[in-house]
Amino acid sequence: MNKIVEYRREFHKYPEYGWHEFRTSARVAEILTELGYDVLMGPDVVNIDSIGEPEQLTPEQTNEAMERAVKQGANPSFVERTKGYPGVLAVFDTEKPGPVTAFRFEMDCLPYQEPEEKGYRPFDDGYVSVNKGRVHACGHDGHTAIGLGIAEELMGKKEQLSGKIKLIFQPAEETFYGAQAVVDKGHLDDVDYFLAMHIALSGENKPLPSNTIACGCKDFLSDRQLDVYFEGKAAHPCGAAQEGKNALLAACSAALNIHAIAPHEGGLFRVNVGEIHAGVCANTIAPNALMRLEYRGQTQEISQYAGKRVFDILDGAAKSYDLSYKYIDYGEVPAGVSDDEIMEVVKRAAGKVPWFKKIYFEGNVGGTDDAAVMINKVQENGGKGTYIGIGTDTTSPLHNAKFDFDEECLGAAVDMCMYALKELHEQE
Amino acid sequence: MNKIVEYRREFHKYPEYGWHEFRTSARVAEILTELGYDVLMGPDVVNIDSIGEPEQLTPEQTNEAMERAVKQGANPSFVERTKGYPGVLAVFDTEKPGPVTAFRFEMDCLPYQEPEEKGYRPFDDGYVSVNKGRVHACGHDGHTAIGLGIAEELMGKKEQLSGKIKLIFQPAEETFYGAQAVVDKGHLDDVDYFLAMHIALSGENKPLPSNTIACGCKDFLSDRQLDVYFEGKAAHPCGAAQEGKNALLAACSAALNIHAIAPHEGGLFRVNVGEIHAGVCANTIAPNALMRLEYRGQTQEISQYAGKRVFDILDGAAKSYDLSYKYIDYGEVPAGVSDDEIMEVVKRAAGKVPWFKKIYFEGNVGGTDDAAVMINKVQENGGKGTYIGIGTDTTSPLHNAKFDFDEECLGAAVDMCMYALKELHEQE
Amino acid sequence: MNKIVEYRREFHKYPEYGWHEFRTSARVAEILTELGYDVLMGPDVVNIDSIGEPEQLTPEQTNEAMERAVKQGANPSFVERTKGYPGVLAVFDTEKPGPVTAFRFEMDCLPYQEPEEKGYRPFDDGYVSVNKGRVHACGHDGHTAIGLGIAEELMGKKEQLSGKIKLIFQPAEETFYGAQAVVDKGHLDDVDYFLAMHIALSGENKPLPSNTIACGCKDFLSDRQLDVYFEGKAAHPCGAAQEGKNALLAACSAALNIHAIAPHEGGLFRVNVGEIHAGVCANTIAPNALMRLEYRGQTQEISQYAGKRVFDILDGAAKSYDLSYKYIDYGEVPAGVSDDEIMEVVKRAAGKVPWFKKIYFEGNVGGTDDAAVMINKVQENGGKGTYIGIGTDTTSPLHNAKFDFDEECLGAAVDMCMYALKELHEQE
Amino acid sequence: MNKIVEYRREFHKYPEYGWHEFRTSARVAEILTELGYDVLMGPDVVNIDSIGEPEQLTPEQTNEAMERAVKQGANPSFVERTKGYPGVLAVFDTEKPGPVTAFRFEMDCLPYQEPEEKGYRPFDDGYVSVNKGRVHACGHDGHTAIGLGIAEELMGKKEQLSGKIKLIFQPAEETFYGAQAVVDKGHLDDVDYFLAMHIALSGENKPLPSNTIACGCKDFLSDRQLDVYFEGKAAHPCGAAQEGKNALLAACSAALNIHAIAPHEGGLFRVNVGEIHAGVCANTIAPNALMRLEYRGQTQEISQYAGKRVFDILDGAAKSYDLSYKYIDYGEVPAGVSDDEIMEVVKRAAGKVPWFKKIYFEGNVGGTDDAAVMINKVQENGGKGTYIGIGTDTTSPLHNAKFDFDEECLGAAVDMCMYALKELHEQE
Repeated sequence: MNKIVEYRREFHKYPEYGWHEFRTSARVAEILTELGYDVLMGPDVVNIDSIGEPEQLTPEQTNEAMERAVKQGANPSFVERTKGYPGVLAVFDTEKPGPVTAFRFEMDCLPYQEPEEKGYRPFDDGYVSVNKGRVHACGHDGHTAIGLGIAEELMGKKEQLSGKIKLIFQPAEETFYGAQAVVDKGHLDDVDYFLAMHIALSGENKPLPSNTIACGCKDFLSDRQLDVYFEGKAAHPCGAAQEGKNALLAACSAALNIHAIAPHEGGLFRVNVGEIHAGVCANTIAPNALMRLEYRGQTQEISQYAGKRVFDILDGAAKSYDLSYKYIDYGEVPAGVSDDEIMEVVKRAAGKVPWFKKIYFEGNVGGTDDAAVMINKVQENGGKGTYIGIGTDTTSPLHNAKFDFDEECLGAAVDMCMYALKELHEQE
Repeated sequence: MNKIVEYRREFHKYPEYGWHEFRTSARVAEILTELGYDVLMGPDVVNIDSIGEPEQLTPEQTNEAMERAVKQGANPSFVERTKGYPGVLAVFDTEKPGPVTAFRFEMDCLPYQEPEEKGYRPFDDGYVSVNKGRVHACGHDGHTAIGLGIAEELMGKKEQLSGKIKLIFQPAEETFYGAQAVVDKGHLDDVDYFLAMHIALSGENKPLPSNTIACGCKDFLSDRQLDVYFEGKAAHPCGAAQEGKNALLAACSAALNIHAIAPHEGGLFRVNVGEIHAGVCANTIAPNALMRLEYRGQTQEISQYAGKRVFDILDGAAKSYDLSYKYIDYGEVPAGVSDDEIMEVVKRAAGKVPWFKKIYFEGNVGGTDDAAVMINKVQENGGKGTYIGIGTDTTSPLHNAKFDFDEECLGAAVDMCMYALKELHEQE
Repeated sequence: MNKIVEYRREFHKYPEYGWHEFRTSARVAEILTELGYDVLMGPDVVNIDSIGEPEQLTPEQTNEAMERAVKQGANPSFVERTKGYPGVLAVFDTEKPGPVTAFRFEMDCLPYQEPEEKGYRPFDDGYVSVNKGRVHACGHDGHTAIGLGIAEELMGKKEQLSGKIKLIFQPAEETFYGAQAVVDKGHLDDVDYFLAMHIALSGENKPLPSNTIACGCKDFLSDRQLDVYFEGKAAHPCGAAQEGKNALLAACSAALNIHAIAPHEGGLFRVNVGEIHAGVCANTIAPNALMRLEYRGQTQEISQYAGKRVFDILDGAAKSYDLSYKYIDYGEVPAGVSDDEIMEVVKRAAGKVPWFKKIYFEGNVGGTDDAAVMINKVQENGGKGTYIGIGTDTTSPLHNAKFDFDEECLGAAVDMCMYALKELHEQE
Repeated sequence: MNKIVEYRREFHKYPEYGWHEFRTSARVAEILTELGYDVLMGPDVVNIDSIGEPEQLTPEQTNEAMERAVKQGANPSFVERTKGYPGVLAVFDTEKPGPVTAFRFEMDCLPYQEPEEKGYRPFDDGYVSVNKGRVHACGHDGHTAIGLGIAEELMGKKEQLSGKIKLIFQPAEETFYGAQAVVDKGHLDDVDYFLAMHIALSGENKPLPSNTIACGCKDFLSDRQLDVYFEGKAAHPCGAAQEGKNALLAACSAALNIHAIAPHEGGLFRVNVGEIHAGVCANTIAPNALMRLEYRGQTQEISQYAGKRVFDILDGAAKSYDLSYKYIDYGEVPAGVSDDEIMEVVKRAAGKVPWFKKIYFEGNVGGTDDAAVMINKVQENGGKGTYIGIGTDTTSPLHNAKFDFDEECLGAAVDMCMYALKELHEQE
């Protein structure tokens, strides 16, 4: 088994939720250091004031997560260097004039329980998640491994290349503020070319299988998440039922109506009430309900339409049940578009990697990725960016708790990136 | 401040949830012992096999609760004597022939957060709950205090009375199996007269204010509680939305339809979906939902009607969202009816207590009480029982987190009980 | 077959909706005239200004209904005498001093389709409804027949009785304004005793079978009906879905939430969304929805609670779907209570009729009856009233399209009334 | 005002619903005949056995519609020639070898009420709909006028062209079976090129304004319509509420859940419950509900997904309310795709018409059109087809009751078609 696959399986075994990626950060930093890189970590990678309140850890949570990281084999000195914030950045500097290219790799996992069942390779081969309710079901373990693969490949190539290459290992893509915090630290300000990649994306609206690649995506959706708190009034359901203000029913009615919002003919629109937590016990009219939702749109108009409709419904549900609500707004991850110029570079590079049998020029994000924050920043300064889809056969769709994939895609992705870098940074 | 009020405020400050009443049990046992009673505790009071699975504590939970009790001032030796099960029983035995009367007092609290705000007496006077998310909002603190008051009054009266008087301090009235476990231990088998009482009940469907009493109730409802688990399938809401099976929406639709079940013209029917906990995060179609519900009926026909309609709707919601569900059934607390004969005794006794200015013969349970399990048992053996409503002015209705009451009712209740005992147990 | 049964079957065959009872009115007036009564009809019975706008017929509708009545065998001269308004009143005047007693009989039917199937007596015996979508499913055909029976019995009894007896054949009990219009005409102003009766009521919350009677009811509910018009905006569901304002979904959401309004512990509360008519065709987002609903309460407090909750939900549904609504309010039929004094009279009278084997003192209205408008008026002037339940075996519950009953109850009801009149109007 | 605009306004004033287009058919046939065409009408145009049961008129309805047509100025002899079926077909035959091109023009309207308000041109200029609840809100008045414009232009061009040109004036596009009935009659069997066009379509998902054109569309959705009948049980809502089976609530719950069906990531999916008609009166639990719905998908997979989810929900709602349902299935209008080859022809033709300032190669159907039935048939035989979007400024989106448009687009469309015909049918 090659090193990239080893790395991937190690990260898979120790999945960490957004802003808790201490073991992963420490391990990435350790490997990069061993390879010879000087690494930035924590507050030098992410601007800590950019982390919105809903995602801020308490000191206790931070300590607990850092301690867990050490217990799970992280090098304590690298854990220490995080200063309580995940994120790693290494720069490969040729010390020659030339362009700046940045790669983005995510490190966080999803909050599901990975199944421990025979016949499922991560279980059979011993790399199933050991962290309860945590699983790499979005391939970020693979992305991090690709980043380390590129880092290793680069080491021998200082002579052949020009300019600088930044390897950004970003926390908190699944949650919030990860890309924004890196951008706010200024790391994208001097970047000419930006590449992010994601395994198991779709092309022509079907999952890309092994041996395929899509050179970029243009269908990013914006994403806004809200935590809505309905505040009703408890009452005994058969002693004073009329005194209650039923927050549970308000949330249920709102959830159904929100899912019934009409689509928008101007492009993709998605909405999801992902969580409800309501009530205190069976024999009390529920005085409280938390509803966690998100909505996405392919354009700003759609996003605004979605927002208006969602708040109409929240207002209406509150009115219907004579109660009030408040909410936490996680802010909006924007939409974005890959650039044809750099997609062409990827196309040529992929053409040189035998593993890729079919090359799609354009693929589908199938949602949102905060890589768009970085692409937008780079484009603002005249740079070009792309978000590449790496095809791979999987056991389940992305975001399913039982997600394993064809690891051959990892090496192919590294190779493709090296060809792209050769073109972008070749010595004149 | 008299002792009964002191006791009540002490219990109010340290509320304990069903099957966790270790501090209360220990304190009750300690006081009764000091008064000269021999007390039974724990497995001698409750039949531990009668405690259904959903209410069984793990050894860890039991330890934690017992340790907390000691930390909060309980006498460790009495906590020890519980052997991990709450419940206290003391018998006042005149050692003369005569009838057996049993009193039932509940000790458990409700899972709400009591407000800590100025102007609210428990806060101002320092007896607001110190246990987070726990509050005596159903008056059981007062009931326990009444029990101790009767115990004290009895002590000097051995000469004047005949027969036996049992004082049952029962756990877990708000949750499940409390009364049943006491009955299954055989403590009601020899009982001729049974009295339970509840403060802040209603009469003529209005809360009974201070200075009133209702001598018995006949409108007990049955109560059945279910924990329903919908099992759907996670999917990314904008990458594979069509793959999901949305357990959250299934629960929401079920909850609305369950609350819309038509009433029954044969008597009272009530239903409540008290809790929903669904989903894992905002950006995943919810694969799971727990719905905690109860339904009640004044007759068996109504209870069966309710059960049929609830399960029709659960089946329908599961079908609608192409998923399955399973459930835990907590069993049914039955309905019950007070006996006129003993209600007449209470009427005469109350007439001798000046505090009671208005005496209603019949009051309203306004729901369910597992005192019915005991009343039914006593009646089965030819005995008579009643469930008495003690009027008291309150800050909020029962089952509201901000529930305080006019403590003068406690002494009046003790006095009324003593007059009733005098009639029932007078020396021939 | 006796005459009362013949009358009942005739009325059953030609059911007429509220304010359309021209055939019935003409036939009742004809029979009463033949018996020797002077009858009042139409505007002399009902105050036409009391008929609210929603129930007013257009001249075309009136003509059509009157023509139909004649076609269906009504005597044209009596149809003429209605002057376009149903209602008949006859006074049996002993011309001696004495009290005034009034009886109320309803004449209108319900808007359902009676089944035409073998084995169903009305079909087999040829008295099934010939008017499409119209059926006497609430027993008013029987009530009218009882009225004629009393009228006939009275004729020979002028010498034996004193005072006056009014026989009021009222239109529009199922819809609106029937009783009010009679009251507003002053016909109840001088009444000392008022009796209305209804077959197939309940006692102890179970349908009263044949050979039973309940002497009065005290559980009248108020009733308020609303026609709600949601006004949205049409749009093509896959060309401009986001432009629509979906009145159909607003109505559906409102209907579910209205049926989920919590009960009131102060007494009976009922709500029903009886009709929805929404949308224009399958491929258009529905721009309009009519929702016809009613709510009832046993006390004014409950009725106000219901009204507040209904309008909260209507407001909330409108807000949720960003549209508006308007409504027609049919006004409120009040609650009311029978008087013990006259219930005792009925009890004694029923005791003399052998057919009644079981006599309940109190029965259940099981809803609303505008007889309450009359009872309230009589009580206002110091009179006494009752609303009697006549037990009878039926094929289906009241308000079911397949409703036939044991006609023996009719004669028994007449006999009971005659005994009551004997007591109330006996010569001193 | 030119003739095409006059024609359009005449058709606008007399809108006729699907299968009722007798005035329009007669008028079209009359004009074509005056121009010198031999026309086919009624059963010679449409295969009457293809008209599914739900759309079949009763003889009374047919007579009434034909009589209305004559009253509204249709030539009785042409109305007669319809033999009770709308539809007109004229063939321009050059009597020289060459290809066969067919044009399709729809004639039916939508069932909305056009507003009669000042400032709205159809009202101000006197061509607002005179048929209550009928309006040309989908531009078919304009399409028919374009057809007549082409017919007129062709007449002088027999010498310059070869082959045959069929002008098909089709009934019932908005409802069902229109295109299918023409196809089943064989009129498309020999067609080489097929052109349909629609005004006010979108391009790049925005309504195409005046001076634009889209040469073809590829995003046709399939469409299936169902009439669902829930069959419950009536009961009095406060006398026997528990006896009812509430069809209204079943429909409401189903409608909300159907609108909440998750989208499909494989392409466009749309669903609409367009109508509900439930219940009989306010004070009866609704025993019946009709729900009229449609669903659409861009691929067969999506269409099947939609069908499964809809029927899951119908089953679930029926189960939830313990009732049954049956349904009428109107069948499925398929998806379809325009051909690049003929889109190129349109592009060249449009380039020659100065009015078209901006030419989009591809536009958006934004839904379904049964032109797809014809395109599919032509493609089956090796022919090519397209569905062209003609841009035009409008007062409202399509399918809105207040829909008027910039009539200059009509002449431009005719000119474009003539240039296309010149290319397709030019003499060799």
